[in-house]
This record gives sequence, structure tokens and C-alpha cells, in this order.
Amino acid sequence: MVRIGVIGGGQLARMMQPAAIALGLNLQVLAENENSSAHLAVTMVGDYNNLETLKRFAKTVDVITFDHEHVPVAHLKQLEDAGVLVRPGSAALIHAQNKLIMRQAMERLNLPQPGWQEIKAEKDLADFLAHHKEAVVKTPIGGYDGKGVRVISAVEQVSDWLENIEQFGGSLLAEQKVNFTRELSQLSARNPSGDFTTWPLVQTIQKNGVCSEVIAPAPGSIREQDASKIAQTIAEGLGVTGVLAVEMFEDESGNYLINELAMRPHNSGHFSIEGSITSQFEQHLRAVADLPLGSTAMKSENAVMLNLLGVDHTNGFVEHYSKVMANHPSVKFHSYEKAPRQGRKMGHLTAIGSDWKQLVEEASRARDELYRGGV
Amino acid sequence: MVRIGVIGGGQLARMMQPAAIALGLNLQVLAENENSSAHLAVTMVGDYNNLETLKRFAKTVDVITFDHEHVPVAHLKQLEDAGVLVRPGSAALIHAQNKLIMRQAMERLNLPQPGWQEIKAEKDLADFLAHHKEAVVKTPIGGYDGKGVRVISAVEQVSDWLENIEQFGGSLLAEQKVNFTRELSQLSARNPSGDFTTWPLVQTIQKNGVCSEVIAPAPGSIREQDASKIAQTIAEGLGVTGVLAVEMFEDESGNYLINELAMRPHNSGHFSIEGSITSQFEQHLRAVADLPLGSTAMKSENAVMLNLLGVDHTNGFVEHYSKVMANHPSVKFHSYEKAPRQGRKMGHLTAIGSDWKQLVEEASRARDELYRGGV
Repeated sequence: MVRIGVIGGGQLARMMQPAAIALGLNLQVLAENENSSAHLAVTMVGDYNNLETLKRFAKTVDVITFDHEHVPVAHLKQLEDAGVLVRPGSAALIHAQNKLIMRQAMERLNLPQPGWQEIKAEKDLADFLAHHKEAVVKTPIGGYDGKGVRVISAVEQVSDWLENIEQFGGSLLAEQKVNFTRELSQLSARNPSGDFTTWPLVQTIQKNGVCSEVIAPAPGSIREQDASKIAQTIAEGLGVTGVLAVEMFEDESGNYLINELAMRPHNSGHFSIEGSITSQFEQHLRAVADLPLGSTAMKSENAVMLNLLGVDHTNGFVEHYSKVMANHPSVKFHSYEKAPRQGRKMGHLTAIGSDWKQLVEEASRARDELYRGGV
Repeated sequence: MVRIGVIGGGQLARMMQPAAIALGLNLQVLAENENSSAHLAVTMVGDYNNLETLKRFAKTVDVITFDHEHVPVAHLKQLEDAGVLVRPGSAALIHAQNKLIMRQAMERLNLPQPGWQEIKAEKDLADFLAHHKEAVVKTPIGGYDGKGVRVISAVEQVSDWLENIEQFGGSLLAEQKVNFTRELSQLSARNPSGDFTTWPLVQTIQKNGVCSEVIAPAPGSIREQDASKIAQTIAEGLGVTGVLAVEMFEDESGNYLINELAMRPHNSGHFSIEGSITSQFEQHLRAVADLPLGSTAMKSENAVMLNLLGVDHTNGFVEHYSKVMANHPSVKFHSYEKAPRQGRKMGHLTAIGSDWKQLVEEASRARDELYRGGV
């Protein structure tokens, strides 16, 4: 059986384990430390920025995939040149790493996205702000969960970034601030043989730039085919293998505009563990191992996922299971076994059923109780 | 969080792992070797018949539970006397180990069961056969999957056992051969606080004494309440903690007669991984950790589970995934990562949906293809 090497020992690698255990796949994780969230499957501890570490890890597995998108693509390219299978490959992954390269590719693929501009100097940004009152300025690399992103109306608000623009590869990205009605995410997967599947389009609700809630399928009027076509165009156009998440804005006319891409299991797809015939974690492993993809049909009409964000350094949530589980026998609890820290993604809750409003209510009560300490 | 120690590294311990990963519970396995089915969670290798090994293992965990029922109860009693939490406890577990003690207890609890007789000498068996033309003779301890069981019509057919009766503790068990219409299994769970839940009554189909197929819920006319009441009487009467499986015969009048008990996750409950809001593996861990039990509601109308039994020493099934998964995108595959051997439980398949006949057909085709090598 194929040995699948995962770079990164976070909660996504952790949640690949149950799928690997079921299928009998050999999962091996390169983590930054022994106590990582995916500790059960950690076979090597080391720095993913170190090419020699990556080469050593590659020798122990048949194919490499990812828990996060921070591995330098130049390193991955070198592995590929040496014959290592990397899925998604560096040529695709660059679009999940570099927001500027992503915008250029979406334009090339004629896909809908907000107005945008590469910013090489103050003047570029001033021009952009002349057309759009507000701009969302992003560092092309390294931002996530709201980091490396600023909403501005004056050039001065990113003068520190502009002064140090070389440290961002010489460019920033300015995007039009979309007056969106809601945020959506289209999850899909593609294997190297070209099989492609999508899960239902979901609605995501962010708080302070971090995903807080996911409703599957997205309630109300949706353009399922448009969303699925966007994902397929990206997956095939960029040669993505594995799970692809396309985060989108829905504007006031009901059009979808591409916000960000992720090429790995994604927070917006956690609902699929309980909610779908094939979870995003199983599908990712199938794709990476070049196995046929599984059915993405829902097991129930709706599924709702709520993130558990750290309250402080003492509340790990699991210590409150007794009280909270008693009140919520249908809610499924997921812990990432991380040390508690304010704002940290510590786990999530899922509820499935036929009425998404009731599910949100139920899971929210469970979350509140975990936050307040099981009262 | 409670550290749960599992004695035995087979497929049941293996399938507890995904539930432990989701909940963030600390699972530790005492296995007979490093390469056991539950290898990811193995923290100690040793012989479960050795009291010193058990004592050392007990020191590393907060509570002990089981992958199988072969640990000597006398050893467990000693652990309990030394203050170790054992769930299920030795006083309950003896009924899953010793079929004679089980029959006596069922009689005490006034529960329906086949006619039976303790056999201490040839004469007892001759008397029993005078009343019942045929008898099912069982060694009280150590039989499973058809081993240690003989259907006889003459005393001579077990003369080897009678001659060595001391090796079976001085007694054999003779049971009336029930003219059953089908076999059923009632899965339930109870935690130390007394919470009790049941899953839907299921039908099990055995081939050559080994479970081959499970249909959940059992099709046709069933007496759900009778079955659930039997399980509850046993769980409470014997003080069971964790999952309890009650295997039963349905006779021609539709009555249920208790066949065997298991006090651990059971083959007849594997359907619950995909089919139920809470799987038997999660429920067992919740019960053992004295957490509130989860909902056992079905996620779909029906679930069907088929065992994958070894064909020969070469066919590990997983090598045929590519062809078989392509034909059956909705079937869920479970490998136990065991070395192939004829007749060995190597894995199982599950399908969920609304028409159990279609599900059996679909899963059977997938199984046949895995047996024939993915053709």
C-alpha cells in the first residue's frame, strides 16, 4: 500500500488519521515537534523549511502531501526534479501560497474575482484607491486567518509594508473590497487520473477573520453549478491533486467572486466527517494515493460545523465534556489536543439533521457551554 | 483527560482509535506484538495472561478496557482489589467469558434462552439428549467464531471433551439446538453512572459460524422493545459498563432466545461507524471514561455491513482498491491491516441508504470483486 507522507502535524494531519486507519493506508507525518496535534502518526520531527529534512522525509514515503501551505515551493520543485511524487505539485500549490500569482491565474482562466492590482510602489496603490475608495491590501505570501491582510482607505495605512516591500518579494496585492452578502466555500477533490468531485456548496461565517461557522449546504438560493464549474476550472486549469477549497464572496447580484484557494482539507469541509458519505480527509488521501474518489453525497439534509476557538490558556474544552455531552447527545465533539491559547483553533463541533437553524442553535449552545466551562 | 488502556491490539482496539482521535481521548493499547492491528496506539507489548504485565500496564492508564474477552478474570479481580478501574469489571466480564456462568445468570434474571444443562459427566449429556434429539455442546471458556462448539446427536461425538473435562473446569455446557428463523443482535451501552442506550436491533447472518453480514435495523417484523429490555436487564443485572452485545435467536413464534454475550464493541455493531450518530467505538470509550452517552440514532434508514474474510495468504484486499473503489463510490472500506490468511477477519465493508436489499447487493458485489482480486 502507498505510504503517504504529510508535511505538518496540525489538526488537518490529525483528522487524516481516522481515514487512513479505516482504509488501511500508511500515513506518516513530518511535524515540527513530537507533541503536535497529529502526534499518533508522527514519524519524523523537523523543520519543513529545511530542504535536507524534506529530502530525508521523502525517502521514507511514496508520495508527499500537506497539512499546511507553508513549505517553500522551490524546495518542493527540487524534490519533484529528484523524482519525488508531490500532491498537489509545486506548480499548483504556488497558487495557494502566493495570492498575487493566484489572481493572475484566475484572470488567465477567465474566472470571476474582485478587482485587483499588483502593488510595486506607493503610486500603484494610490491609483487603485482612486478607483476604489477602499482596498484590501494583502502580503502575497504567509497570511492566513486574517493575518497579513489590512482594509485601508489611505496609502499611509500600509506604509510600513511599502517601505519593506522587498521582504514580500517586491510586491503587495491590492483587492477591491467586495460588498458581499455572504461568504461561500466550494470544496472539491481531484486525483491524478483526473477524477473530480465536489461537495455541496457551503456557507461560511467568519468572525475576526477566522472561520466560526459552516452551514452545509449553503441555505437559500444558490448557483450550485456555477460554483462547481469554478472549482473544476481551477482544479483542471492548475492541475490540482487532492482537496481544493475555493472560498468565494457572494455579491448583491448573487454572483460569486473568488476570494482564496486552499489545496488541502479545509476548515469549511470539516462537516463532511459526519455529514458526507466520503469525508474531505478520506477523499484527500484517496486522491493523493491516486485511488478512485468516493461519493460526496450528504448523509442527512444538513450539517453544521462550529469552530472551538481558545478562550484562554486554561480552557481546553475536553475537561467540560461531562456536563456538555449530557446536554447535547447528538452533537459530535472534535478536539485537536492542542495547548489552550486565546483565539487558537482548538477543535470543532458538528451536528447533522434536517433543519440547519435548529442545528446551529443546538451546536451553539454546546459551544457556549464549553466556552463557559460546562455550566 | 482520562487515559484509557485497552488490553488487546486487534481490530476492535484499532477501530477505537478514530473515536479517541476525534474526542481527544488518550488511548493506550497493550498488544501481543508491535505489528498488531491497532499498532498506532500500542504503548506496551506483552502477554495478557501475565499478571505482572497487566499490573505494569495498569500503572500507565486511568481505566482498563478490552479488545477481547480472554484476559483471566482472576487477574482482573486482583487488579480491581489493588484499586485499578476495570470496565467492564471482572464480576460482569465473567459472563462473557464463561458460557455456563452466563446461562446461570440469564436464568436468575428470568430471561428467555434455549434449554440448557451443565454437563459434568457422560450421564448428564445422555439425559439431555434423551429430551432433545440434538444438542449444541460448548466448552464454557475460550470458544468463539464457531470454535469450541459442536452440534451432536450422540454422546460419543464429544467423548474427547468428556475424557478431558477437567481441562474445561470440570463442566461442559449443553444447549438445546434452536430451530431459529434468523439471528439477531441487540447492541447497547451503559456507563458507570447508569446511562443506558441501545442501537436498533440488527439481523446477523453467519456463515460457517462466523459473522458474514449485518443488516441494520433488522428487516421485517421485530420486537424492538423486547430486545432492548433484554439488553437492559442484562446490563443492569450484571453491572456491565461499556458496549454490550446480546446475540439472540428468533424462533418460529418470533420470540427471542439469548445465544451469547459480548462486553466490548462487537462485529454486529460495525455498521454504526457510518450508520449511527454515535458509533459503538465512540460509545464504548465514552462509557469507559464515564462520560455521558451519545445519540444512537441512525443517519440513514438502513446500514449494511459485510465482513471481509481472508481468501488466502496473498489477498490483502487493499491492493485491489483501485478497481473496486471505482465501481463502488458509495461503499466504505475498512482494512484491519492484518496479514492475509484464509478465513481471517481482514476488514469489512459498509453501505448506508434507504433500501437494505440494494445495499446488500451493492456491498456484496464490492466484496466479490475484492475476493476475486478487483476484476
